[in-house]
Amino acid sequence: MPITMSSASVPTFRNTLRNLDHILDKAAAHAQARKFDPVNLTSFRLAPDMLPFTSQVQIACDAAKNCVARLSGVEAPRFEDNEKTFEELRARIAKTLAWLESVPADRLDGTEDKDITFPVGRETTRTMKGEAYLKHWAIPNFFFHVGMAYAILRHNGVELGKSDYLAGAAR
Amino acid sequence: MPITMSSASVPTFRNTLRNLDHILDKAAAHAQARKFDPVNLTSFRLAPDMLPFTSQVQIACDAAKNCVARLSGVEAPRFEDNEKTFEELRARIAKTLAWLESVPADRLDGTEDKDITFPVGRETTRTMKGEAYLKHWAIPNFFFHVGMAYAILRHNGVELGKSDYLAGAAR
Repeated sequence: MPITMSSASVPTFRNTLRNLDHILDKAAAHAQARKFDPVNLTSFRLAPDMLPFTSQVQIACDAAKNCVARLSGVEAPRFEDNEKTFEELRARIAKTLAWLESVPADRLDGTEDKDITFPVGRETTRTMKGEAYLKHWAIPNFFFHVGMAYAILRHNGVELGKSDYLAGAAR
Repeated sequence: MPITMSSASVPTFRNTLRNLDHILDKAAAHAQARKFDPVNLTSFRLAPDMLPFTSQVQIACDAAKNCVARLSGVEAPRFEDNEKTFEELRARIAKTLAWLESVPADRLDGTEDKDITFPVGRETTRTMKGEAYLKHWAIPNFFFHVGMAYAILRHNGVELGKSDYLAGAAR
């Protein structure tokens, strides 16, 4: 089967969001075992001018959701950015996954050359062709935030390995 | 133009490796301006049981190289993992980019269902179909190590923003 815009987008996001959910499950168990307030971990920043863990997960979800919405033209639900606990963040991942699954593949296929206009910062927009947007913006952005979430947990002693990130619960 | 295995692989790696090169350029300038030994930064680990910065860059390069080699069947050069400075790491990125450019697109196209067998750890291998290997192993693995490299620099005060990661020198 030839690779398509639908096969190159949704499954990429889906697999990694499932693995991220698995990683959050391990992080929640870590906090519980050590008897510390999980918010100490979900509010952690790798640098004082970086976003906290909660934002990294929220933005990873939105990077996937917005990419699929823009390519497909299917409107995505908006989620409030009010999660504080691992359970709430896992619920956001679940809502994102459910919405991604609801988008028909044929709305994504053939969008290689579709003009995609998206916000960059608060006052500017950028326009890229669909395939370039997927490969050079949406996917790198998505993995950036998943990576920062992982880095925050690892830096704080959560027992994770790359197999958790690559293969999740099936590792 | 429909998305293909060549268009979904080499350009993804190329863009982000170029951006990584730009990030290393900024990191080298940071070390020089602050007058510290750059090896203090290139040997840094986010956790004592994580790989240092040098390895993150080396593995990011190899993740791209090995993916394209396995899909295309074109033999890739082996690089010694002996880089210590930003300049040496940038040379590794340049060598990787040059090799990626040398692989004919038609060796990559049509490899969606090709069986790809690759090492996982030291004693086991895993086999996946070409498209699944690209999307669910090679690309996530590649972005993982680029992300960890970025996280190490940001955590250590190098002035970087996501635009450096997403758009490199063209940001």
